[in-house]
Parts: sequence; C-alpha cells; structure tokens
Amino acid sequence: MAQQFGARFNNIKIILVRPQMGENIGAVARVMLNFGLENLCLVAPRDGWPNSKAIAMSAGAEEVISKVKIYPDLLSAIADDNLIYAATVRSREVNKEVITPKNLTKEIINLPTNAKISIVIGPENSGLNNDDISYANKIITIPVNTKFGSINIAQATGIICYELFANQNNLSDKYDNIQELANANEINDFFEHLEGELDNNNYFKSLDKRKTMINNLRSLYKRVNNFSKQDVRTMRGIINCLAKD
Amino acid sequence: MAQQFGARFNNIKIILVRPQMGENIGAVARVMLNFGLENLCLVAPRDGWPNSKAIAMSAGAEEVISKVKIYPDLLSAIADDNLIYAATVRSREVNKEVITPKNLTKEIINLPTNAKISIVIGPENSGLNNDDISYANKIITIPVNTKFGSINIAQATGIICYELFANQNNLSDKYDNIQELANANEINDFFEHLEGELDNNNYFKSLDKRKTMINNLRSLYKRVNNFSKQDVRTMRGIINCLAKD
Repeated sequence: MAQQFGARFNNIKIILVRPQMGENIGAVARVMLNFGLENLCLVAPRDGWPNSKAIAMSAGAEEVISKVKIYPDLLSAIADDNLIYAATVRSREVNKEVITPKNLTKEIINLPTNAKISIVIGPENSGLNNDDISYANKIITIPVNTKFGSINIAQATGIICYELFANQNNLSDKYDNIQELANANEINDFFEHLEGELDNNNYFKSLDKRKTMINNLRSLYKRVNNFSKQDVRTMRGIINCLAKD
Repeated sequence: MAQQFGARFNNIKIILVRPQMGENIGAVARVMLNFGLENLCLVAPRDGWPNSKAIAMSAGAEEVISKVKIYPDLLSAIADDNLIYAATVRSREVNKEVITPKNLTKEIINLPTNAKISIVIGPENSGLNNDDISYANKIITIPVNTKFGSINIAQATGIICYELFANQNNLSDKYDNIQELANANEINDFFEHLEGELDNNNYFKSLDKRKTMINNLRSLYKRVNNFSKQDVRTMRGIINCLAKD
C-alpha cells in the first residue's frame, strides 16, 4: 500500500529501541499507517514478539504489524540506512544538531529519494541513551511545554509521521544524480578502523577519556551532509596511508 | 501554569464527547499538558469520573486531571463558548467548512484573544454524530491515509494541540476592539426562538423534512464569522417583528 505515497515513504522506517509496553507498540503501528508509513523495527522489545497487546492496539494496521522486524541491537537495525535521526527531548551533552519535526520534513525533501532514513525512538521510561544517540546524524526534538515535556512514544511518533504526511506532496519522488550515500554499517566500519589505528598509536591519553573522545569524533563525522560511500573509501584510504609502519 | 502561554491558551478547551476508555482520556490529558493546554471537559464519559485508568495514563498531568469538568450533554459543555470546532474524519452530509489543524491555528490567530474556543472530539467507536456536529462552526479534519483513516482520539488531540503549541508565538495575546462574540447558549436560544416561530407559522412542510431544514438553517448561521451578541439581538428583533400577529 505504501506505494501510493511513493518510494520516499518506503525508504523511511521507525525504530523503537527497547520498547516496554505492547500497547505503545500497537499505537505506534496504528498511527504510522494513518500517515502512510509501514516499516516498523523493534530493537530488543521487553516482552518479545509477537505481542497480543500490540496487535489489539494497532486497530487493524496489518500492513505494519505483519512486517515488523526485530533486531538485537540498534546498529543491526540501522545497518543499511543512510540517515539516522534520534527523537529525544532530553538535553544531554551531545554535540549534534537538533531539529524540529517540521525541519526534519524540509530536510528529507532535499535528500535523494533512494536515501534510507531511520527515525529512532527510545524506551518509555528513560528515552534513548548516549550510545543510542551516538549513531544519529541529528536529533529531532518536538517543541513542548518545558514544565511537562515527557511525550508518550506513540504521540511522538504520531507527530513526526503527521508532519511527513502533511507535506507528502513536497516529498514526492526526487531522483537526484548524487553520489550513493554511505550506510550506517559502512560508517561504523570506518569508525572502528579509525579508532583501532588510533589505539595502535596511543592517541587516547587515558581509558577514561577514550569514550568521550570517540563520541566527539563520531559526532563530527555524523555531521557531514550526504556522507557518501566514496567519502568513506577516501577516509579509509587516508587512515591506511597514515597508519603505515 | 497555562498563564505562561497567555490568555489565548486559557481560552481553549478540549471536549471529549462520550469517551469510552479511561486510558484514552488519560492520554489526552497528558498530551494536552505537553502542549500547554489545561482545560479538558468530558461529556457523559462511559465509565464516570474520576477514572483510575485515566489518572494512570495521564502520567502526572495534574494541572489537567484536577480541573476536568463533566457535563451531561454537549450543549451545556459549550454554552459559554464562542467558536466550536468539531474534529471528525467522517464525511457526512453536513454543510460546514472543513479545515486542517494548520489552518485552525491560522484562524485562531486572527480571533480576539478573549474568544472562547472549544475543540470537540467524538467517541472511540463511532465519532461525533450529526447532532454533535450541528453545534460546530467548522469541522477539523486531519490529513490522513484514506485507506486507514481512523485516528485514535488521543493522537488526534495531540496533533491539534501540537499545531497550536508550535505556533504559540503567533498565538500570543491580541486584544482587538471588536464586538463581543455570541456564545453557543445565546446562539442556541436564537435558533429555538426562530424555529419556534417558524413552527407557529407552519413553515416546515412535513415533520420528516423539519430536521433537515433546521440543520441546514443552523449550519448557515454557524458559518457567520464573528457572530456577535449584537448580531443575535438584531436577528431576534427581526423575528419578533416578523412574527407579530
């Protein structure tokens, strides 16, 4: 069915990280289909899958429920994706650009249609942790009453999907001849390559600082617009060159 | 707390008509407060009030829950309000303007700040009926996947409140010196006066047609922009004049 909304909508997925309540998973599935999105991934859902409460709350959103994909961790869920957006209201010491759902939509309009996009949403009790957020290119924050800022995960999903759908005419297919974008797996391999070589050369002053420095380094590369497969090859070439004995 | 969002937000209320599930009432309260709205009214809630499931799902939205007002019917809930908007996706044979949540927000910006506004949302199973809708000035419809258009009532509320909040800077206080708007009670009294006189003069050709003709007549007056107390007095003067023996 998503075909009616074009390739763009087929290339967007919602990822719930460690969701706890089946009711919320079902409510997410329902509101996704209300707004024409069908790709739902669950990372380590607390109560496993399938979940009868989720199915009841989905109110017949078969196109979503029947295609739910389960992953053990966030990296495997996003492995093939080009752009990762993490929805969180918490301000943490993370050096990433923060955008609204409206600006997310504007940004997606300018991506090539075949770009694979993940929207990542955290667990009910605690939201996304810093490790989850480290995979994201940008953070989506919904403007909210700062004195009562905790939004239900299905509501947050609903508002993001609503904004995408309300602008679907602008989101129609757009085939740009730009370089093929790198996916999260390729970018992660690049990071591990770089960090391994830095370890070999005693770049990190202490184990304490290592994690922070790596997070900052990853954040820097996550801010590159349209980071392409060719860009990754270039960077890895540089590392190989510099790291030569 | 709503004071922080100005008089405008204090003059907007959400009315759930014959809501069935406490969980949905609680989810509505939570998302209202997320977006700075505190006035929630329930018309004939199925399971009465207070409702422990609603309180649990409200996740601490005390400012809303503690002020919930209960009414036996929709007219008494809207009696003091000037503008009534009914949220429904169903297309019925109702002769009313249909607007999106975005356009609702644009419209409210142009109303005087002291205008009292009701947003009316129907029960889970069936939505608003034609009698409920007859009280509305306009219909709000959320743009949606037409093949899966039934939105959860808390999601619908959330999207409408989100649009209002996202535009709160444009919604700030605006004290126009326009005539004082008529409220739903005054308009209802006018309708009953008019319809009573029409009955006395055998205007309605048959009892069958009476209801349809009255609905059309009420719809016509509901489409008057900024229908003021003075307008109501003028119309009632005309009726009194024409109906004289």
